[in-house]
Amino acid sequence: MGQNLIEKQLKSTEIYEGRILNLRIDNVKLPDGNEAKREIVEHAAGVTIIPYLQDTGEVIMVRQFRNPAEQILLEMPAGMLEINEEPKRCARRELEEETGYKAGDLKRIGSFYTSPGFCDERIHLYLAQNLSKYEQHTDVDEFLEVLKIPLEDLKNKLYTPEIIDAKTIIGVQFLLNYLQKD
Amino acid sequence: MGQNLIEKQLKSTEIYEGRILNLRIDNVKLPDGNEAKREIVEHAAGVTIIPYLQDTGEVIMVRQFRNPAEQILLEMPAGMLEINEEPKRCARRELEEETGYKAGDLKRIGSFYTSPGFCDERIHLYLAQNLSKYEQHTDVDEFLEVLKIPLEDLKNKLYTPEIIDAKTIIGVQFLLNYLQKD
Repeated sequence: MGQNLIEKQLKSTEIYEGRILNLRIDNVKLPDGNEAKREIVEHAAGVTIIPYLQDTGEVIMVRQFRNPAEQILLEMPAGMLEINEEPKRCARRELEEETGYKAGDLKRIGSFYTSPGFCDERIHLYLAQNLSKYEQHTDVDEFLEVLKIPLEDLKNKLYTPEIIDAKTIIGVQFLLNYLQKD
Repeated sequence: MGQNLIEKQLKSTEIYEGRILNLRIDNVKLPDGNEAKREIVEHAAGVTIIPYLQDTGEVIMVRQFRNPAEQILLEMPAGMLEINEEPKRCARRELEEETGYKAGDLKRIGSFYTSPGFCDERIHLYLAQNLSKYEQHTDVDEFLEVLKIPLEDLKNKLYTPEIIDAKTIIGVQFLLNYLQKD
Protein backbone atom coordinates (compact mmCIF):
# COMPACT_ATOMS: atom_id res chain seq x y z
CA MET A 1 0.00 0.00 0.00
CA GLY A 2 1.30 3.38 -0.91
CA GLN A 3 3.90 2.09 -3.41
CA ASN A 4 2.14 4.13 -6.10
CA LEU A 5 2.79 7.34 -4.12
CA ILE A 6 6.56 7.13 -3.85
CA GLU A 7 8.94 9.51 -5.63
CA LYS A 8 12.40 8.31 -6.58
CA GLN A 9 15.38 10.66 -6.29
CA LEU A 10 17.28 10.88 -9.58
CA LYS A 11 19.74 13.67 -8.85
CA SER A 12 20.46 16.05 -5.98
CA THR A 13 22.19 19.42 -6.41
CA GLU A 14 23.56 21.43 -3.51
CA ILE A 15 22.67 25.13 -3.90
CA TYR A 16 23.77 26.59 -0.57
CA GLU A 17 25.52 25.30 2.52
CA GLY A 18 25.07 27.56 5.54
CA ARG A 19 25.23 27.86 9.28
CA ILE A 20 21.77 26.61 10.29
CA LEU A 21 20.47 25.37 6.94
CA ASN A 22 21.38 24.00 3.51
CA LEU A 23 19.38 24.25 0.29
CA ARG A 24 19.32 21.54 -2.39
CA ILE A 25 17.30 20.78 -5.50
CA ASP A 26 16.27 17.18 -6.14
CA ASN A 27 15.22 15.86 -9.51
CA VAL A 28 12.69 13.13 -8.81
CA LYS A 29 10.79 10.51 -10.78
CA LEU A 30 7.07 10.73 -10.03
CA PRO A 31 4.85 7.65 -9.60
CA ASP A 32 3.59 8.07 -13.20
CA GLY A 33 7.14 8.10 -14.62
CA ASN A 34 7.36 11.86 -15.25
CA GLU A 35 10.04 14.00 -13.67
CA ALA A 36 9.79 17.00 -11.32
CA LYS A 37 12.07 19.26 -9.30
CA ARG A 38 11.85 19.65 -5.51
CA GLU A 39 13.44 22.55 -3.62
CA ILE A 40 14.45 21.20 -0.23
CA VAL A 41 15.75 22.96 2.87
CA GLU A 42 17.89 20.87 5.20
CA HIS A 43 17.69 22.26 8.73
CA ALA A 44 19.10 21.03 12.03
CA ALA A 45 16.60 19.21 14.26
CA GLY A 46 15.38 20.96 17.39
CA VAL A 47 13.49 20.63 20.64
CA THR A 48 10.52 22.40 22.20
CA ILE A 49 9.84 22.20 25.91
CA ILE A 50 6.48 22.62 27.68
CA PRO A 51 7.59 23.79 31.17
CA TYR A 52 4.49 23.34 33.32
CA LEU A 53 4.22 24.52 36.92
CA GLN A 54 1.55 22.23 38.40
CA ASP A 55 1.15 24.24 41.62
CA THR A 56 0.11 27.45 39.90
CA GLY A 57 -1.16 26.14 36.55
CA GLU A 58 1.36 28.33 34.76
CA VAL A 59 3.63 27.67 31.80
CA ILE A 60 7.09 29.24 31.49
CA MET A 61 7.21 31.06 28.16
CA VAL A 62 9.68 33.22 26.28
CA ARG A 63 9.13 36.34 24.20
CA GLN A 64 11.58 36.96 21.40
CA PHE A 65 11.91 38.86 18.16
CA ARG A 66 11.64 36.67 15.07
CA ASN A 67 13.17 38.15 11.97
CA PRO A 68 11.15 36.18 9.37
CA ALA A 69 7.89 37.12 11.14
CA GLU A 70 9.12 40.68 11.75
CA GLN A 71 7.61 40.72 15.23
CA ILE A 72 7.98 39.59 18.82
CA LEU A 73 6.36 36.19 19.41
CA LEU A 74 5.34 34.43 22.60
CA GLU A 75 6.79 30.93 22.37
CA MET A 76 7.60 27.86 24.35
CA PRO A 77 11.34 27.47 25.06
CA ALA A 78 13.06 25.79 22.12
CA GLY A 79 16.36 25.38 20.37
CA MET A 80 18.48 23.42 17.93
CA LEU A 81 20.37 20.22 18.63
CA GLU A 82 24.12 20.63 18.75
CA ILE A 83 26.22 18.14 16.75
CA ASN A 84 25.71 14.61 18.12
CA GLU A 85 23.52 15.93 20.95
CA GLU A 86 20.70 13.69 22.17
CA PRO A 87 17.29 15.40 21.97
CA LYS A 88 16.62 14.91 25.69
CA ARG A 89 19.94 16.44 26.66
CA CYS A 90 19.22 19.34 24.31
CA ALA A 91 15.79 19.85 25.90
CA ARG A 92 17.39 20.05 29.36
CA ARG A 93 20.07 22.44 28.12
CA GLU A 94 17.70 24.76 26.25
CA LEU A 95 15.24 24.89 29.15
CA GLU A 96 18.06 25.91 31.51
CA GLU A 97 19.70 28.36 29.12
CA GLU A 98 16.54 30.12 28.02
CA THR A 99 14.48 30.15 31.20
CA GLY A 100 16.86 29.42 34.07
CA TYR A 101 14.73 26.45 35.22
CA LYS A 102 15.83 22.83 35.75
CA ALA A 103 13.32 20.03 35.14
CA GLY A 104 12.86 17.32 37.78
CA ASP A 105 10.79 15.33 35.27
CA LEU A 106 11.31 15.55 31.53
CA LYS A 107 8.94 13.40 29.48
CA ARG A 108 9.22 12.85 25.73
CA ILE A 109 5.91 13.43 23.90
CA GLY A 110 7.06 12.75 20.34
CA SER A 111 8.41 14.60 17.35
CA PHE A 112 7.09 16.35 14.26
CA TYR A 113 8.19 17.92 10.98
CA THR A 114 7.51 21.67 10.89
CA SER A 115 6.85 21.78 7.14
CA PRO A 116 7.44 18.41 5.45
CA GLY A 117 6.59 19.64 1.95
CA PHE A 118 9.94 21.40 1.56
CA CYS A 119 11.96 21.09 4.79
CA ASP A 120 13.40 18.25 6.88
CA GLU A 121 13.38 20.17 10.18
CA ARG A 122 12.12 17.89 12.93
CA ILE A 123 11.23 19.05 16.42
CA HIS A 124 11.25 16.82 19.50
CA LEU A 125 8.61 17.79 22.05
CA TYR A 126 9.07 17.41 25.84
CA LEU A 127 6.89 18.03 28.86
CA ALA A 128 8.94 19.43 31.77
CA GLN A 129 7.58 19.23 35.31
CA ASN A 130 8.87 19.56 38.88
CA LEU A 131 10.75 22.68 37.89
CA SER A 132 13.24 24.50 40.07
CA LYS A 133 14.78 27.91 39.53
CA TYR A 134 18.38 27.99 38.47
CA GLU A 135 19.88 30.75 36.33
CA GLN A 136 19.40 31.95 32.78
CA HIS A 137 22.33 32.17 30.32
CA THR A 138 21.30 32.63 26.71
CA ASP A 139 23.46 32.45 23.57
CA VAL A 140 25.35 35.61 22.60
CA ASP A 141 23.01 36.41 19.68
CA GLU A 142 19.83 35.50 21.55
CA PHE A 143 17.69 38.06 23.40
CA LEU A 144 14.57 36.96 25.18
CA GLU A 145 12.21 37.69 28.02
CA VAL A 146 10.94 34.94 30.35
CA LEU A 147 7.34 34.98 31.60
CA LYS A 148 5.11 32.69 33.65
CA ILE A 149 1.64 32.61 32.07
CA PRO A 150 -1.48 30.74 33.27
CA LEU A 151 -2.44 27.94 30.87
CA GLU A 152 -5.96 29.39 30.69
CA ASP A 153 -4.51 32.66 29.33
CA LEU A 154 -2.43 30.78 26.77
CA LYS A 155 -5.56 28.96 25.63
CA ASN A 156 -7.25 32.31 25.00
CA LYS A 157 -4.20 33.64 23.13
CA LEU A 158 -4.07 30.73 20.65
CA TYR A 159 -4.38 32.01 17.06
CA THR A 160 -4.22 35.64 18.22
CA PRO A 161 -1.17 37.65 17.07
CA GLU A 162 0.69 36.72 20.27
CA ILE A 163 0.80 32.96 19.76
CA ILE A 164 1.20 32.12 16.11
CA ASP A 165 4.00 29.67 15.85
CA ALA A 166 3.31 26.02 15.18
CA LYS A 167 5.41 24.42 17.94
CA THR A 168 3.86 26.67 20.61
CA ILE A 169 0.30 26.02 19.41
CA ILE A 170 1.09 22.29 19.46
CA GLY A 171 2.49 22.57 22.99
CA VAL A 172 -0.48 24.49 24.40
CA GLN A 173 -3.05 22.23 22.71
CA PHE A 174 -1.16 19.15 23.90
CA LEU A 175 -1.15 20.37 27.48
CA LEU A 176 -4.86 21.22 27.38
CA ASN A 177 -5.71 17.70 26.14
CA TYR A 178 -3.21 16.07 28.50
CA LEU A 179 -4.60 17.72 31.63
CA GLN A 180 -8.18 16.91 30.65
CA LYS A 181 -7.30 13.22 30.79
CA ASP A 182 -6.32 13.36 34.46
CA MET B 1 7.83 46.61 26.46
CA GLY B 2 9.87 44.39 24.20
CA GLN B 3 11.82 47.25 22.57
CA ASN B 4 15.00 45.73 23.95
CA LEU B 5 14.33 42.51 22.03
CA ILE B 6 14.12 43.93 18.53
CA GLU B 7 16.69 43.25 15.83
CA LYS B 8 17.25 45.83 13.12
CA GLN B 9 17.92 44.74 9.53
CA LEU B 10 21.12 46.30 8.18
CA LYS B 11 21.53 44.50 4.86
CA SER B 12 19.72 41.75 2.99
CA THR B 13 21.39 39.54 0.36
CA GLU B 14 19.42 37.33 -2.02
CA ILE B 15 21.09 33.89 -2.30
CA TYR B 16 18.54 31.93 -4.33
CA GLU B 17 15.25 32.67 -6.02
CA GLY B 18 13.22 29.58 -6.81
CA ARG B 19 9.83 28.16 -7.63
CA ILE B 20 8.35 27.72 -4.15
CA LEU B 21 10.98 29.42 -2.01
CA ASN B 22 13.73 32.04 -1.89
CA LEU B 23 16.76 32.16 0.39
CA ARG B 24 18.29 35.36 1.74
CA ILE B 25 20.85 36.32 4.36
CA ASP B 26 20.13 39.31 6.56
CA ASN B 27 22.77 41.18 8.50
CA VAL B 28 21.07 42.44 11.64
CA LYS B 29 21.90 44.68 14.55
CA LEU B 30 21.19 42.93 17.85
CA PRO B 31 19.61 44.71 20.84
CA ASP B 32 23.08 45.04 22.44
CA GLY B 33 24.51 46.73 19.33
CA ASN B 34 26.45 43.73 18.02
CA GLU B 35 25.81 42.30 14.58
CA ALA B 36 24.68 38.84 13.49
CA LYS B 37 23.67 37.01 10.31
CA ARG B 38 20.28 35.37 9.81
CA GLU B 39 19.61 32.79 7.10
CA ILE B 40 15.99 33.23 6.06
CA VAL B 41 13.77 31.16 3.79
CA GLU B 42 10.92 33.01 2.10
CA HIS B 43 8.12 30.59 1.33
CA ALA B 44 4.63 31.08 -0.13
CA ALA B 45 1.82 31.10 2.44
CA GLY B 46 -0.52 28.13 2.55
CA VAL B 47 -3.73 26.70 3.91
CA THR B 48 -4.67 23.60 5.88
CA ILE B 49 -8.22 22.33 6.01
CA ILE B 50 -9.83 20.18 8.73
CA PRO B 51 -12.63 18.42 6.80
CA TYR B 52 -14.90 17.02 9.50
CA LEU B 53 -17.87 14.73 8.81
CA GLN B 54 -20.14 15.30 11.82
CA ASP B 55 -22.44 12.36 11.04
CA THR B 56 -19.72 9.73 11.22
CA GLY B 57 -17.12 11.53 13.37
CA GLU B 58 -14.56 11.07 10.60
CA VAL B 59 -11.95 13.41 9.14
CA ILE B 60 -11.00 13.35 5.45
CA MET B 61 -7.24 12.89 5.27
CA VAL B 62 -4.63 12.48 2.56
CA ARG B 63 -1.60 10.21 2.39
CA GLN B 64 1.31 11.43 0.33
CA PHE B 65 5.02 10.91 -0.10
CA ARG B 66 7.12 13.73 1.33
CA ASN B 67 10.59 13.98 -0.09
CA PRO B 68 12.24 15.85 2.85
CA ALA B 69 10.82 13.29 5.32
CA GLU B 70 11.58 10.39 2.92
CA GLN B 71 8.29 8.70 3.80
CA ILE B 72 4.54 8.66 3.25
CA LEU B 73 2.74 10.88 5.77
CA LEU B 74 -0.90 11.04 6.81
CA GLU B 75 -1.88 14.71 6.60
CA MET B 76 -4.81 17.07 6.52
CA PRO B 77 -5.50 18.49 3.05
CA ALA B 78 -3.29 21.54 2.42
CA GLY B 79 -1.69 23.63 -0.26
CA MET B 80 -0.05 26.88 -1.21
CA LEU B 81 -1.77 30.13 -2.09
CA GLU B 82 -1.60 31.06 -5.73
CA ILE B 83 -0.56 34.63 -6.59
CA ASN B 84 -3.13 37.11 -5.22
CA GLU B 85 -5.35 34.26 -4.00
CA GLU B 86 -7.41 34.84 -0.84
CA PRO B 87 -6.72 32.19 1.83
CA LYS B 88 -10.40 31.18 2.03
CA ARG B 89 -10.65 30.71 -1.73
CA CYS B 90 -7.44 28.66 -1.61
CA ALA B 91 -8.86 26.48 1.19
CA ARG B 92 -11.97 25.76 -0.91
CA ARG B 93 -9.86 25.00 -3.98
CA GLU B 94 -7.37 22.75 -2.22
CA LEU B 95 -10.10 20.81 -0.41
CA GLU B 96 -11.86 20.16 -3.72
CA GLU B 97 -8.70 19.38 -5.69
CA GLU B 98 -7.14 17.07 -3.13
CA THR B 99 -10.17 15.27 -1.71
CA GLY B 100 -13.03 15.84 -4.13
CA TYR B 101 -15.22 17.31 -1.38
CA LYS B 102 -16.97 20.70 -1.33
CA ALA B 103 -17.50 22.47 2.01
CA GLY B 104 -20.94 23.84 2.88
CA ASP B 105 -19.36 25.67 5.84
CA LEU B 106 -15.79 26.88 5.87
CA LYS B 107 -14.71 28.56 9.12
CA ARG B 108 -11.39 30.36 9.61
CA ILE B 109 -9.58 29.27 12.80
CA GLY B 110 -6.48 31.43 12.49
CA SER B 111 -2.97 31.23 11.10
CA PHE B 112 0.51 30.24 12.25
CA TYR B 113 4.16 30.29 11.23
CA THR B 114 5.54 26.79 10.67
CA SER B 115 9.07 27.68 11.84
CA PRO B 116 9.48 31.38 12.64
CA GLY B 117 13.15 31.10 13.58
CA PHE B 118 14.25 30.89 9.93
CA CYS B 119 11.18 30.85 7.65
CA ASP B 120 8.27 33.19 6.89
CA GLU B 121 5.87 30.42 5.79
CA ARG B 122 2.45 31.08 7.29
CA ILE B 123 -0.44 28.63 7.19
CA HIS B 124 -4.10 29.61 7.41
CA LEU B 125 -6.23 27.00 9.17
CA TYR B 126 -9.88 26.27 8.27
CA LEU B 127 -12.56 23.98 9.63
CA ALA B 128 -14.71 22.55 6.82
CA GLN B 129 -18.12 21.10 7.60
CA ASN B 130 -21.30 20.11 5.73
CA LEU B 131 -19.20 18.36 3.14
CA SER B 132 -20.52 16.94 -0.12
CA LYS B 133 -18.73 14.62 -2.54
CA TYR B 134 -17.61 16.19 -5.78
CA GLU B 135 -14.59 14.98 -7.74
CA GLN B 136 -10.84 14.90 -7.11
CA HIS B 137 -8.40 16.52 -9.55
CA THR B 138 -4.88 16.93 -8.19
CA ASP B 139 -1.94 18.85 -9.67
CA VAL B 140 0.15 17.06 -12.30
CA ASP B 141 3.07 16.48 -9.93
CA GLU B 142 0.92 15.55 -6.93
CA PHE B 143 0.04 11.97 -6.05
CA LEU B 144 -2.12 11.26 -3.04
CA GLU B 145 -4.59 8.87 -1.50
CA VAL B 146 -7.78 10.09 0.20
CA LEU B 147 -9.04 8.37 3.37
CA LYS B 148 -11.85 8.94 5.87
CA ILE B 149 -10.51 8.28 9.37
CA PRO B 150 -12.41 8.42 12.69
CA LEU B 151 -11.20 11.31 14.87
CA GLU B 152 -10.62 8.85 17.71
CA ASP B 153 -8.14 6.92 15.53
CA LEU B 154 -6.36 10.16 14.58
CA LYS B 155 -6.03 11.00 18.27
CA ASN B 156 -4.31 7.66 18.87
CA LYS B 157 -2.01 8.17 15.88
CA LEU B 158 -0.71 11.57 17.09
CA TYR B 159 3.08 11.52 17.53
CA THR B 160 3.29 8.01 16.04
CA PRO B 161 5.19 7.68 12.71
CA GLU B 162 1.93 8.13 10.77
CA ILE B 163 1.06 11.65 11.96
CA ILE B 164 4.20 13.69 12.39
CA ASP B 165 3.64 16.93 10.62
CA ALA B 166 2.94 20.11 12.53
CA LYS B 167 -0.14 21.36 10.66
CA THR B 168 -1.88 17.98 10.98
CA ILE B 169 -1.10 17.69 14.70
CA ILE B 170 -2.46 21.22 15.15
CA GLY B 171 -5.60 20.33 13.19
CA VAL B 172 -6.33 17.13 15.13
CA GLN B 173 -5.63 18.72 18.53
CA PHE B 174 -7.76 21.74 17.58
CA LEU B 175 -10.70 19.51 16.62
CA LEU B 176 -10.40 17.48 19.85
CA ASN B 177 -10.53 20.66 21.95
CA TYR B 178 -13.24 22.23 19.78
CA LEU B 179 -15.62 19.29 20.07
CA GLN B 180 -15.09 19.02 23.82
CA LYS B 181 -16.51 22.53 24.18
CA ASP B 182 -19.87 21.54 22.64
